[in-house]
Amino acid sequence: MPPFDLPEGDPFGPHNLPYGVFSVGEQADRTVGVRLGDHVLDAGAAAHALGSPYATLLARPSLNPLLAAGRTTWSDVRRALTAWVTVPSHQSAVQEFLHPLSSVTLHLPFEVADYVDFYASENHARNVGHIFRPDAADSLTPNWKHLPIGYHGRSGTVVVSGTDVVRPSGQRKAPSDTEPVFGPSVRLDIEAEVGFVVGVPSVMGSPVALGDFREHVFGLCLLNDWSARDIQAWEYVPLGPFLGKSFATSVSAWITPLDALEEARVAPPERTHELLPYLDDSASGDGPGGYDLRISVSINGHLVSEPPFSTMYWTAAQQLAHMTVNGASLRTGDLYGSGTVSGPSEHERGSLLELTWNGRDTLELPDGKRTFLEDGDVVTLSAWAPGPDGVRVGLGEVTGRVAAGEQPL
Amino acid sequence: MPPFDLPEGDPFGPHNLPYGVFSVGEQADRTVGVRLGDHVLDAGAAAHALGSPYATLLARPSLNPLLAAGRTTWSDVRRALTAWVTVPSHQSAVQEFLHPLSSVTLHLPFEVADYVDFYASENHARNVGHIFRPDAADSLTPNWKHLPIGYHGRSGTVVVSGTDVVRPSGQRKAPSDTEPVFGPSVRLDIEAEVGFVVGVPSVMGSPVALGDFREHVFGLCLLNDWSARDIQAWEYVPLGPFLGKSFATSVSAWITPLDALEEARVAPPERTHELLPYLDDSASGDGPGGYDLRISVSINGHLVSEPPFSTMYWTAAQQLAHMTVNGASLRTGDLYGSGTVSGPSEHERGSLLELTWNGRDTLELPDGKRTFLEDGDVVTLSAWAPGPDGVRVGLGEVTGRVAAGEQPL
Repeated sequence: MPPFDLPEGDPFGPHNLPYGVFSVGEQADRTVGVRLGDHVLDAGAAAHALGSPYATLLARPSLNPLLAAGRTTWSDVRRALTAWVTVPSHQSAVQEFLHPLSSVTLHLPFEVADYVDFYASENHARNVGHIFRPDAADSLTPNWKHLPIGYHGRSGTVVVSGTDVVRPSGQRKAPSDTEPVFGPSVRLDIEAEVGFVVGVPSVMGSPVALGDFREHVFGLCLLNDWSARDIQAWEYVPLGPFLGKSFATSVSAWITPLDALEEARVAPPERTHELLPYLDDSASGDGPGGYDLRISVSINGHLVSEPPFSTMYWTAAQQLAHMTVNGASLRTGDLYGSGTVSGPSEHERGSLLELTWNGRDTLELPDGKRTFLEDGDVVTLSAWAPGPDGVRVGLGEVTGRVAAGEQPL
Repeated sequence: MPPFDLPEGDPFGPHNLPYGVFSVGEQADRTVGVRLGDHVLDAGAAAHALGSPYATLLARPSLNPLLAAGRTTWSDVRRALTAWVTVPSHQSAVQEFLHPLSSVTLHLPFEVADYVDFYASENHARNVGHIFRPDAADSLTPNWKHLPIGYHGRSGTVVVSGTDVVRPSGQRKAPSDTEPVFGPSVRLDIEAEVGFVVGVPSVMGSPVALGDFREHVFGLCLLNDWSARDIQAWEYVPLGPFLGKSFATSVSAWITPLDALEEARVAPPERTHELLPYLDDSASGDGPGGYDLRISVSINGHLVSEPPFSTMYWTAAQQLAHMTVNGASLRTGDLYGSGTVSGPSEHERGSLLELTWNGRDTLELPDGKRTFLEDGDVVTLSAWAPGPDGVRVGLGEVTGRVAAGEQPL
């Protein structure tokens, strides 16, 4: 029987239990919350009331202490939470710590340490190659099938869903310009991604093996890697994206633990190239490395794309192994993005760059045509995954409104 | 008269007073120290003893509270410290809080928020262009003279001087290789740089103007941006350096406040291109934007290069203005590197890549020839700047020993 008044099959039922950080009212302290249907359970208060030893991990203003606690504790806490919301005697004890979602403010759920972004969708990389290097023999760069390409982004501008994103200004230089010009970006874009959240740190100088992914990564979120294509195009050779990306990265308020996504695990696409041993997951004893997450991208409430995460060539475990193979250490709160998720079909592309083929085509929305984003546009990524017994696991949403930028300096 | 038993003209006299974080003995707490000659003043203990209101900023395990306090406080604290070490009555009160440098452990002096690395030396960029793109019409990329190129690095692997650097493993693919191979880097290099430390944060969406540099940046340090050239060459197209850099970045233990470097300010090289207004420092009312810092690079104690920081094309103020012009916010503890410092002459190059022209030439050291670094090599960057009355301002050193890497996975 579903707990409380949760409808049968609710995607935020007790099979899900994603974690966030919330506050009630203007001055209230932040604390860890667990989503249940349209409510948030004050997890620390519930733990205190039930005399649970996990109160010290949960009555906290960020998820970082829980993230750092490690895999065994993650499972133990999840088991306890499941009991609190499903066993009738516990239910009555925690009932008073449930707040309607509409009555709380959701915050960035963890302190972001380093933020890395990957480029792991073959469809996306090929689309970008066709658009920017139409004369190249191969739409992929020579390294693409040998390693998950990634780069560091700005962790200080990772913001929670619902935060306005100010249109960035910067330099751009169109082929027709003789000199660069300065002003608000005229090619503001999105990238629909999934973000992975590191819990357990690693020691500098010691790589994390492919099979240790679940010892270090706690869960995942939705991530919109806002991108100013005109700024990016002018700046990125030879050292990669910088100001075209660093103005904002939005993440969903809910971190879904990997433990809630066991039924969503799928094999990644067949590998076309032999992989070096540290990336070779063909004989993994740990089960498949992909995740079947169904993402929807909407602009002003109008669905524009449905990128399938199951098509990603590189898995999150491969990305973690690659990111640390040089001895780089992990910290609690490290966040890494999958890269733009794009499926093979036109309706599955995770960026406007691809959806409009760099502005050649237009998207027809009820409120007008789009090539790139206009001021006032609200972009929302949402997603779900297959769960137990045919029930969906809701991954929530990450949304953001484009605010007009300041005038040029 | 010099304070205590400091020799006349000591580069760490009361005109300097750089800040660090130290501990005494195995279990002792970390606290802010100020270097005076060959001693460290326990600044928090001294403040307590003298009843100074700055005790709460200084009796701390990192510089972050002082960094966040802002420019007026930075000046006030510096004025107070100057009095403590020069006025005889104060000298006798703080004498007991001086520890010989040889008796303390120095730690990473601040918590690094975001780490950005620039590419601001024209000589370095031209050398790299000649080495990697010998057929290009211009050794600089088209954007180079229009904006200070930069990218984000890994803040979690910024380490303090003296920390061993484990040789990274990774993928590389020489032109003669048909497939990438995996193993310890065979082209491990250094980059001699200066790092700038942000104190006062900024608000997301609001750029920091060129003239506000000194409101936000507290001071500078020496920085060695260790680089695995073979890993970097294979990975960096199209998204920039990643594992070739992320294994370690070393910084000096001492942060020299900008207030100690007023006499070192010099005009940057003449600009060959007109700059967009947000970068145009030609009419700056704030004095020259360059710094005359004389860097020495040595390997195993043998001097190999003397890069002059005064030759840097882009200034730290321009880098800050550029980094935030898209609305990216600053946090206390943000660190940004200048990029490799290379002067026009062969003996002034800040990397082995340039000093050996990518291994074509060799460096002759007393202990053998070098193209790139060997296990056990100790690299030390040190520097000084002109100070008041002809006295040097010592910038300390950043040193690190190359430790053998683990065997390939």
